[in-house]
Amino acid sequence: MRNSTRSNVDPFIVMDVMEAARRAEEAGRRIIHMEVGQPGTGAPKGAIEALKGALDADPLGYTVALGMPALRRRIAQIYGEWYDVDLNPDRVVITPGSSGGFLLTFTALFDSGDRVGIGAPGYPSYRQILSALGMVPVDLPTAPENRLQPVAANFAGLDLTGLLVASPANPTGTMLDRPAMSALIEATQEQGASFISDEIYHGIEYEAKAVTALEVTDDCYVINSFSKYFSMTGWRVGWMVVPEDQVRVVERIAQNMFICAPHASQVAALAALDCDEELQANLDVYKANRALMLDGLPKAGFTKIAPPDGAFYVYADVSDITANSRAFAAEILEKAGVAVTPGLDFDPVRGGGTIRFSYARSTQDIEEGLRRLREFMTNRM
Amino acid sequence: MRNSTRSNVDPFIVMDVMEAARRAEEAGRRIIHMEVGQPGTGAPKGAIEALKGALDADPLGYTVALGMPALRRRIAQIYGEWYDVDLNPDRVVITPGSSGGFLLTFTALFDSGDRVGIGAPGYPSYRQILSALGMVPVDLPTAPENRLQPVAANFAGLDLTGLLVASPANPTGTMLDRPAMSALIEATQEQGASFISDEIYHGIEYEAKAVTALEVTDDCYVINSFSKYFSMTGWRVGWMVVPEDQVRVVERIAQNMFICAPHASQVAALAALDCDEELQANLDVYKANRALMLDGLPKAGFTKIAPPDGAFYVYADVSDITANSRAFAAEILEKAGVAVTPGLDFDPVRGGGTIRFSYARSTQDIEEGLRRLREFMTNRM
Repeated sequence: MRNSTRSNVDPFIVMDVMEAARRAEEAGRRIIHMEVGQPGTGAPKGAIEALKGALDADPLGYTVALGMPALRRRIAQIYGEWYDVDLNPDRVVITPGSSGGFLLTFTALFDSGDRVGIGAPGYPSYRQILSALGMVPVDLPTAPENRLQPVAANFAGLDLTGLLVASPANPTGTMLDRPAMSALIEATQEQGASFISDEIYHGIEYEAKAVTALEVTDDCYVINSFSKYFSMTGWRVGWMVVPEDQVRVVERIAQNMFICAPHASQVAALAALDCDEELQANLDVYKANRALMLDGLPKAGFTKIAPPDGAFYVYADVSDITANSRAFAAEILEKAGVAVTPGLDFDPVRGGGTIRFSYARSTQDIEEGLRRLREFMTNRM
Repeated sequence: MRNSTRSNVDPFIVMDVMEAARRAEEAGRRIIHMEVGQPGTGAPKGAIEALKGALDADPLGYTVALGMPALRRRIAQIYGEWYDVDLNPDRVVITPGSSGGFLLTFTALFDSGDRVGIGAPGYPSYRQILSALGMVPVDLPTAPENRLQPVAANFAGLDLTGLLVASPANPTGTMLDRPAMSALIEATQEQGASFISDEIYHGIEYEAKAVTALEVTDDCYVINSFSKYFSMTGWRVGWMVVPEDQVRVVERIAQNMFICAPHASQVAALAALDCDEELQANLDVYKANRALMLDGLPKAGFTKIAPPDGAFYVYADVSDITANSRAFAAEILEKAGVAVTPGLDFDPVRGGGTIRFSYARSTQDIEEGLRRLREFMTNRM
């Protein structure tokens, strides 16, 4: 059977790492997982209890395409609580994870061949989803002095139809403060392009609260999810906030592409919004892990790192150690028993000299991982 | 904000009916729902119990993109049980509903501007998803003498890159028998086009077992779901069967577009595959309802109907009553308190003279609905 051109998306290189890690574990080895991008915790207990109640009381058929009205209202409310932004619940759209949010956003805004700017390094699926939809992802190589976030100069004259930013970002954990966010929005809108803000790591912040694009403008698409702060990865439920005049457009696409986000996940998500105590305890673990990483990684020899503002990743420049991050990650796995992600997944051009460490798992694992990394690097010198 | 051309998808006309029905119910009226395309029952009890157990035992994070291996194996097994087809479980891909299956299939096989044939009347989202992906849906007007299923003559010379068929079909409930299925597959492959078989209503059959395209060829994409026979609409979990050399292509797209189907839904689906007793009881209700419809609709004056082979719909030709099925559906709702779907949702050209009745709900509701329809039509004469 003949395949389309657009189906030719790159594989995740980290999948090879995960498969090698799985084989090592099968052979009886204990592997420390610093490659995974998901919390080790499950959904909050309150969410699980709410779902159990619904399982007995409700057939859980389709919801309307925009999502359960109570969930949309409750999400609108957190914009008041988190950012002091007054948000009309009608602008909230429940999606099957942020993945569903990207599909809806790109379809609503872009046509075949349209050029969309994304920061490099960045989340690999931005590039792949755009390609799979027949659009053209345009990598914007970011600079360390801009904390690996795009700036207006990166996309001047590039004829973009849209710009997608992430703050806190994956794989760097860096954030856009309000002036930086405002400058990007202004430059994007001056070029007549659409502004999209991926805010999936909001809530996982260490020094300052992340800024939502909605503090700056209503004329943007915001994408978020219950996967990170709310610790509900496998539930595939997220949300978008769109301008009022975009709701109907997005609704029609969502009706056809998804019918609705999983009903059970929506029930659990609604309850998760009231589980702050448990979620803050998860956050305390990330905080402790982050402190261990910022102390332990330089001691192990990974000195070119920047303290992450949010998320649970450290992106390390290892270009003075290797030009082949893929081989280096394989070596770390084999010799140290620590799985890490090669930077090539995030930056096809410069990622040969970078790796990403995740600290989303337990503090014990982080301690053991750092010990192993230190030993490995000492023996490697 | 500027929208893409591809975002301009048609609304579901039935949504207006549902909204009008909701308003009538809010005002205290009892409405009989013959417009909905979903079972009134929830997931089988065994599925719910299995999920409750998993909620306590498993954080339910991401699964691998292709889905839980145990679920893929168990689905492969039903091809032996249902069709006597020996299926390699590696060819089974778990999807977020059949909706996810369409997104994956179209992306894997078609590029921008590619022409894909679909039967008219047919499921509205085929057309809309193809358009939203920048492809070109080509309506194939089907004939009553072919039981409203496409035949090779309908698409000769149309330069199609793919053909999508459904058996049992929505909105007609008609099936392709093995000779008809074989002829379509042969004609499609002769033209160098890809063959896609939507088998979402398999298991809900009345006279004969539905034929899977896999009985005829391995060189096709099959799309199925837990939404209909397994009565799990809101769970958003389905599956595809693809040729062996297509698994890797589909896997990469799925990793990026969805990450995975909802984990909790996969757990429930696995258990649902062993809940035949309860599911057969649901089927008995559809059988009783179908018999009532085939008796009651002609008595009410809807004489131009064909007995459905499967699914839970009757598609009625009402062209001697009206040329505006939308207005007619509104009139039935207002005067009889019965919600039905205008044919325009399924056939933009000829659907002004047709309506779809669903008999997925309780037998009591069907009896009352038929009584009301008869009274309405008598008064209308």
